[in-house]
Amino acid sequence: MQGLLDQSASVGVLAGSGALPFAVAEQIAARGQRAVIFGIRGYCDAARIESYPHHWIALGQLGRLTRLLHQERCRDVIFLGGVVRPALSELRMDFGTLLAIPKLVSAFRGGDDHLLTGIGKLIEGYGLRTVGVHEIAPGLTMPEGRITRRQPDDQNVADIHKGVQVLKAISPFDVGQGVIVIDGNIVCVEDIEGTDAMLARAARLRRDGRLRAPPGRGVLIKMPKVGQNLKFDMPTVGSKTVEGVRDAGLAGIATIAGQTLFAEPQDAIAVADKAGLFITGLPV
Amino acid sequence: MQGLLDQSASVGVLAGSGALPFAVAEQIAARGQRAVIFGIRGYCDAARIESYPHHWIALGQLGRLTRLLHQERCRDVIFLGGVVRPALSELRMDFGTLLAIPKLVSAFRGGDDHLLTGIGKLIEGYGLRTVGVHEIAPGLTMPEGRITRRQPDDQNVADIHKGVQVLKAISPFDVGQGVIVIDGNIVCVEDIEGTDAMLARAARLRRDGRLRAPPGRGVLIKMPKVGQNLKFDMPTVGSKTVEGVRDAGLAGIATIAGQTLFAEPQDAIAVADKAGLFITGLPV
Repeated sequence: MQGLLDQSASVGVLAGSGALPFAVAEQIAARGQRAVIFGIRGYCDAARIESYPHHWIALGQLGRLTRLLHQERCRDVIFLGGVVRPALSELRMDFGTLLAIPKLVSAFRGGDDHLLTGIGKLIEGYGLRTVGVHEIAPGLTMPEGRITRRQPDDQNVADIHKGVQVLKAISPFDVGQGVIVIDGNIVCVEDIEGTDAMLARAARLRRDGRLRAPPGRGVLIKMPKVGQNLKFDMPTVGSKTVEGVRDAGLAGIATIAGQTLFAEPQDAIAVADKAGLFITGLPV
Repeated sequence: MQGLLDQSASVGVLAGSGALPFAVAEQIAARGQRAVIFGIRGYCDAARIESYPHHWIALGQLGRLTRLLHQERCRDVIFLGGVVRPALSELRMDFGTLLAIPKLVSAFRGGDDHLLTGIGKLIEGYGLRTVGVHEIAPGLTMPEGRITRRQPDDQNVADIHKGVQVLKAISPFDVGQGVIVIDGNIVCVEDIEGTDAMLARAARLRRDGRLRAPPGRGVLIKMPKVGQNLKFDMPTVGSKTVEGVRDAGLAGIATIAGQTLFAEPQDAIAVADKAGLFITGLPV
C-alpha cells in the first residue's frame, strides 16, 4: 500500500459499481497524483481494483473509512460509481457510523441528492475535502457542442429546449435528471427508476403501440438539478445510455457540457455514429 | 332508434372503452333525458351498447358522426371512455374528416389534452355543444373529503401537498396527471404510460428493491393540469386505480373533488376499505 509519489497529495476514490472509479484513478495518476481506491463491498469491481492501491470497506463503516483515509494521507475524497440506496438492515455499522447516526438519519430522509450531500458533509466533518470529477478529472466530462457525425435538426433543438424547461420546472422537487421529448411532446419523465430504465420503458411503450412517433425522432435530455451538488451526483452518459437511446428509437442525447460524466467517450461515440444518433453538450 | 322523451333534449355519448359511457348514459336517463351512444368501433363494449339507443362509428368518420348527431337531434355531445391515440394509418377517414384535415393535423401535434380539445372544437364547429361529466352527471365525480374508513395521517397530508406542488410545476408541459409521493420523496411521475402503468411500475420497483419505503406509506395524487379542458380529459379513479395503489404498497389516493371521474364509487370504496387505504377528495 506504499505509493511512489508524494503521499500528501493522495486522492481517496470511494468506489461503487462501474468503470468510472478506475477511469478517474487513471486520470489522477496521469497528472502525477496517487489514487487509493476504497472499494465498496458488493458494488466495486473486485477484479479491476487489484491493479490499484486499495482497501475494501462495507457500507456503514464510516469509522473505518475515515481512519484509512487519514492513514493513506488522502485529503481529497471523490465518490464514484453506482450504489443503490441500501436498506438500513444491510448496513454494517461500525462505531464511527454509530456516532454519526443522527446526521445520517436526516440525510436518509430526502431524495438521492440530499442523501449523498449529507454523507459528503459528514466526511468533511472529519477534516477531509470532497471533490467532484469536474474538478479532478474534467477530461471525463461532456465537452461542449456536437461530438457525433449526426447533428441535431431544428425539431431536435426545439425538443432539447422544451426538455430543459421541464427539468428546470421539476428541479426543486428532487425527482430525476432526465426527460424524453419527441416532436414537442414530453413522452417520459425520469423518476427513481433511473435513466436506463426510463429508456427501456420508452422502448416498451413503443412496442406496445402507446408511443406512436416514427423512429429516429426525439431526444433524451439529461441535466443536473438546479443547485445539485455535482461532487456526489453528476448526470452520467456512456455507451449503455447511447444503446438505450438507440433501442428507444430516439434521435440523440443532449446534456450539459462540463456537468455530465462521460467516462468512455470513444465507445459511446462509436455506438452513436453506428446507429446514426447525435450526442451534444449544451453550454452551461 | 326512436326515444320516448323530447328529442330536442337528446345527449350524444361518444363512447370509447370502459364502463363509464354506460354509467353516464344511466345518469342522463335518470334525469329524464334521452342518451344516444355512439360506440367507437374497437373500443366501446359491444355487449353493453345493445341496451341503449346507439350507432357504431369508426375513428375518422367525423362526417358520419356529425350527420348522425343531427339526425338524432343531439345538441350536447360528451366524450367518454378510453381511446388510445390512433396511428394515422388506422383512421378510416370519411369526407367530413377529409375537409377537417388541416385542423386535425394541428390537433394531433400537441399532447393528449391538445388533441382532444382540438377535436372538441371541431365538433363545435358543426353547431354541436360539447359537455363534460362534471356538467351533465356531477354525481359521478369525486366528492370532497375522505370517503373511506381510513383517513390520511399527517405525513400523508404532507405528501399530498408535495404532490400537488409537483403536478402544478409540470402542468404547463402537458405531461401527466399523477404522481406518487412517499414520505416526502417524489417516487414516480406519470407520463404517457398512464396511471395504471405507473402504479404497476412502482410495484415492480418495490419488488426489485429500488423502492425501499415500508409498505403502507405514500400517496397517489391525481389532478387535472392547470387549464385542462375537463370536458375531454378528466382524471379518473376507479376500482382498478385502488387495486394498483394497494399493489404498489401505498396508503391512499388524493384527487380533486368535482374534477375527477369516480364512476364505480361503491366498488372502489369496498376495495379501499378491505385493503385499509384512504381515498380523499381535495377542495378545488
